[in-house]
Amino acid sequence: MAGCCAVLAAFLFEYDTPRIVLIRSRKVGLMNRAVQLLILAYVIGWVFVWEKGYQEMDSVVSSVTTKAKGVTRTNTSDLGFRIWDVADYVIPAQEENSLFIMTNMIVTLNQTQGVCPEIPDKTSVCKSDADCAAGSTGTHSNGVATGRCVQFDETVKTCEVEAWCPVENDTHVPKPAFLKAAENFTLLVKNNIWYPKFNFSKRNILPNITTTYLKSCIYNAVTDPFCPIFRLGKIVEAAGHSFQDMAVEGGIMGIQIRWDCNLDIAASHCLPKYSFRRLDTRDLDHNVSPGYNFRFAKYYSDLTGVEHRTLIKAYGIRFDIIVFGKAGKFDIIPTMINIGSGLALLGVATVLCDIIVLYCMKKRFYYREKKYKYVEDYEQPIISETDR
Amino acid sequence: MAGCCAVLAAFLFEYDTPRIVLIRSRKVGLMNRAVQLLILAYVIGWVFVWEKGYQEMDSVVSSVTTKAKGVTRTNTSDLGFRIWDVADYVIPAQEENSLFIMTNMIVTLNQTQGVCPEIPDKTSVCKSDADCAAGSTGTHSNGVATGRCVQFDETVKTCEVEAWCPVENDTHVPKPAFLKAAENFTLLVKNNIWYPKFNFSKRNILPNITTTYLKSCIYNAVTDPFCPIFRLGKIVEAAGHSFQDMAVEGGIMGIQIRWDCNLDIAASHCLPKYSFRRLDTRDLDHNVSPGYNFRFAKYYSDLTGVEHRTLIKAYGIRFDIIVFGKAGKFDIIPTMINIGSGLALLGVATVLCDIIVLYCMKKRFYYREKKYKYVEDYEQPIISETDR
Amino acid sequence: MAGCCAVLAAFLFEYDTPRIVLIRSRKVGLMNRAVQLLILAYVIGWVFVWEKGYQEMDSVVSSVTTKAKGVTRTNTSDLGFRIWDVADYVIPAQEENSLFIMTNMIVTLNQTQGVCPEIPDKTSVCKSDADCAAGSTGTHSNGVATGRCVQFDETVKTCEVEAWCPVENDTHVPKPAFLKAAENFTLLVKNNIWYPKFNFSKRNILPNITTTYLKSCIYNAVTDPFCPIFRLGKIVEAAGHSFQDMAVEGGIMGIQIRWDCNLDIAASHCLPKYSFRRLDTRDLDHNVSPGYNFRFAKYYSDLTGVEHRTLIKAYGIRFDIIVFGKAGKFDIIPTMINIGSGLALLGVATVLCDIIVLYCMKKRFYYREKKYKYVEDYEQPIISETDR
Repeated sequence: MAGCCAVLAAFLFEYDTPRIVLIRSRKVGLMNRAVQLLILAYVIGWVFVWEKGYQEMDSVVSSVTTKAKGVTRTNTSDLGFRIWDVADYVIPAQEENSLFIMTNMIVTLNQTQGVCPEIPDKTSVCKSDADCAAGSTGTHSNGVATGRCVQFDETVKTCEVEAWCPVENDTHVPKPAFLKAAENFTLLVKNNIWYPKFNFSKRNILPNITTTYLKSCIYNAVTDPFCPIFRLGKIVEAAGHSFQDMAVEGGIMGIQIRWDCNLDIAASHCLPKYSFRRLDTRDLDHNVSPGYNFRFAKYYSDLTGVEHRTLIKAYGIRFDIIVFGKAGKFDIIPTMINIGSGLALLGVATVLCDIIVLYCMKKRFYYREKKYKYVEDYEQPIISETDR
Repeated sequence: MAGCCAVLAAFLFEYDTPRIVLIRSRKVGLMNRAVQLLILAYVIGWVFVWEKGYQEMDSVVSSVTTKAKGVTRTNTSDLGFRIWDVADYVIPAQEENSLFIMTNMIVTLNQTQGVCPEIPDKTSVCKSDADCAAGSTGTHSNGVATGRCVQFDETVKTCEVEAWCPVENDTHVPKPAFLKAAENFTLLVKNNIWYPKFNFSKRNILPNITTTYLKSCIYNAVTDPFCPIFRLGKIVEAAGHSFQDMAVEGGIMGIQIRWDCNLDIAASHCLPKYSFRRLDTRDLDHNVSPGYNFRFAKYYSDLTGVEHRTLIKAYGIRFDIIVFGKAGKFDIIPTMINIGSGLALLGVATVLCDIIVLYCMKKRFYYREKKYKYVEDYEQPIISETDR
Repeated sequence: MAGCCAVLAAFLFEYDTPRIVLIRSRKVGLMNRAVQLLILAYVIGWVFVWEKGYQEMDSVVSSVTTKAKGVTRTNTSDLGFRIWDVADYVIPAQEENSLFIMTNMIVTLNQTQGVCPEIPDKTSVCKSDADCAAGSTGTHSNGVATGRCVQFDETVKTCEVEAWCPVENDTHVPKPAFLKAAENFTLLVKNNIWYPKFNFSKRNILPNITTTYLKSCIYNAVTDPFCPIFRLGKIVEAAGHSFQDMAVEGGIMGIQIRWDCNLDIAASHCLPKYSFRRLDTRDLDHNVSPGYNFRFAKYYSDLTGVEHRTLIKAYGIRFDIIVFGKAGKFDIIPTMINIGSGLALLGVATVLCDIIVLYCMKKRFYYREKKYKYVEDYEQPIISETDR
């Protein structure tokens, strides 16, 4: 008991600090300070100032709404004169983080359920019924083969299929694009972000933006970097592509909104940064499944109740709004981790200098003698060697 | 060779430990322990217990499906008596992480391709044809100007446009909202989450939820916090807004599901936490492009094959289901990093105390003498000063 | 002033290094090295080699497009003979990260606004008008009750409702699934990823994939792990479920694409890894709201302009493409943090050995004497005990 107390007392009332050899040597001294300075500079300058090592990070939670505007007129043989507005070329009418704008199309009018010859291609052309397996469906066929081989036109015979007839012929994509005027359409992007960890939220329509400005402005990286209204042509251009070229076969454009915020400073400095990138990498030399398109149909039913449909293969540009970014705010944990390991690194200085002093300098034996005290495992005072 | 062995032996069989000065001083001793205790408390208490510094984190991967229920009746002059069910007011029929419910609308019946006067606004009203540039399309115009200036009604003349005629007149939004009864519709949210790093997955329909309960329950933060069925009105209310007010011009509601899981304890403690937030910040003093709406059309074709459409400008509330959260599980790396830097921080205690002992206390010279051993750069034993 | 200079000089030109006791003891020496080796092994091997502690991480930003192919034929009493192609069974026509394929359906043809008896269930069956509250709408009712109780068929009477009539009867789900042939449909997934921090982007159609290969290949975990075309049946199978079973009531399939990239090595090693998981956990014993379905309608209008619709309750499989992964690249910060805390951990070795040497070994008093130099708080040299 008493012993225990003594130990505790010793533990509490004793202060132990390492014994130090102070070597008065300009060379080593300066070197030592230099190394320490370097490490300090790294820890302070790089970790804290540059990389903000004292901040806790959180990644963004976002919500996006889009709205397209624009109207254009077309005049073609099969469709005749036609006006196209938002309800016609935006499919589907609304999406969460993206918006599809139809720029080109292949329309197959007035299809009905029935049998008709396939479009000629290397799989569908035939000489006789023998070439057409009944009930078979190729990956690219429009229907189920009946097994008959019929005239497609004067020259060529193809397998007959049960399908929506007449079948679509998409061998030739209209060029230039059908709705090439889409280049001048505008896109309004509303984006609302949130950093859950810091419960900080902001929208890309900044407080200082007025209704009048919003009615007139068009995004421009230099003059209007915070106007959330984009001209489609400009978006594609900014990504280094040609809208008219892209409009023909379609594609995917990424509208990237980066929210990098330092929440240790005023929230007004947390601003969206827009950038544009084409997401369907289209290299002409290695051109695998280019562009973007899909099929949809409008269904009608006539007097007798027979269902008709207009099949549309829609080529177009899908604008994906990609929101990302990180917010940083001072936090004790990362700060302490960095300080701690910084201090540990300072130890490196001593280690380095020790090596030099004890192994490289000509007075090394003298220094070693000062630094070390040799203790043999067996009992026998060895004053002579040490602690002179 | 032999020398090399000797060195190796020395390296292996020698144990070096710093020499320590033990100062028996209550003041310094206690202070030293106090500082050490503080640091230890921080490392253990804060880093490990509070911030779970010993855990590796992973963020959630999620999949959401939604289903709305509810039916209501309207009776208006132009549409007459009408019933609205899910297939009518949910557009599009299904989305990935969100659901749009139409609450208000401006219907333009029986539009056809043709020419008609624009809706009067400051850009479209005209005195003579001179005021209407043929082929021009303003951002907000419904069609392409023909260049003629025609009677809109008895009083006012506007530019004629090629468009879907008659053009939509959305100057007056119905108030109260057309489908105000949507307040009582219900929304079932099915959410399945996954933490790839730990291959842990769970759904928000908890194992203990029965089919009967699910048929009857309605989410309530207090009484039914785990019922995945929400009353639309309650959602908006919980976000501190009025449904009827929001229904008029539409808006975006965020249904936030937070999955913060500590996977070191039972999986049954990993539960979803629902919260609601309005995502289209709507401050009345600074009201820029409020609400949420979009246009879509239903296409018809009459006997002669002429295409008609019913244009609908749909105002409504889009419910974005935002799933986020982090899961933590013990991992050796962060643990060791924190322990390591913690130990390093302990060194701070000694540094602090040394400063006090060697610079502030009145017996400082005495202590310094004990701690330090001065070694001049030049050869000459200096026993006198040190190691008495 | 002069004093100040002296202090500075001392600070700059003095090098202090701790004094060390070197104990020549095989036991302790070996143990010390062993512990150090362990810690070193951990730091190098585990932190750096295994966990790549020297890398900065970034998580993926992704964009996905999908395209389904396939056509099938059905023949039923109410719909008669019918061909189904992409435009018919993909709803909506395009989505951002997912694709819904209808596999089963309940069609209610030719609905009009009107009044008709409800489908019999425990809430709707009635004896007299008293059982039907006018204007009431249950959660599962198809319309607004008129308050009358009418004959549903010879045997049973149900409440009359204002609704789209006739009301849908979804009591019996077709089994086997209506479009069971969907098992053989194929799905092309195009995925483009981006790591913003490293500005590294790649797509899942790898550079070495040729157009011809892409036309013919089908994903197979073993033989074609990089073919982005999937057979629907195989996807469900790979997740350990039966397609035909799933097709009846529908469900959600997750197509997970993992992009784990080490950007310190060649980009060609950064490859997508596909895996499949069913997201609507379907355990037969605890089967709450299984499958996936939604309702949509096709609207028609007859000569008199009366609106008809075909209501379709679509059961089907939604394929969610879930892209995730992390990219790592050498960075100085995490490297230094790990080195720093690693060094700090090395200190643990000394602490451990000290404890053993000073408390456990029988020669402990002798060693303590060597290591420590006791300094009393009061002035009085105590040579005798220490530094013999």
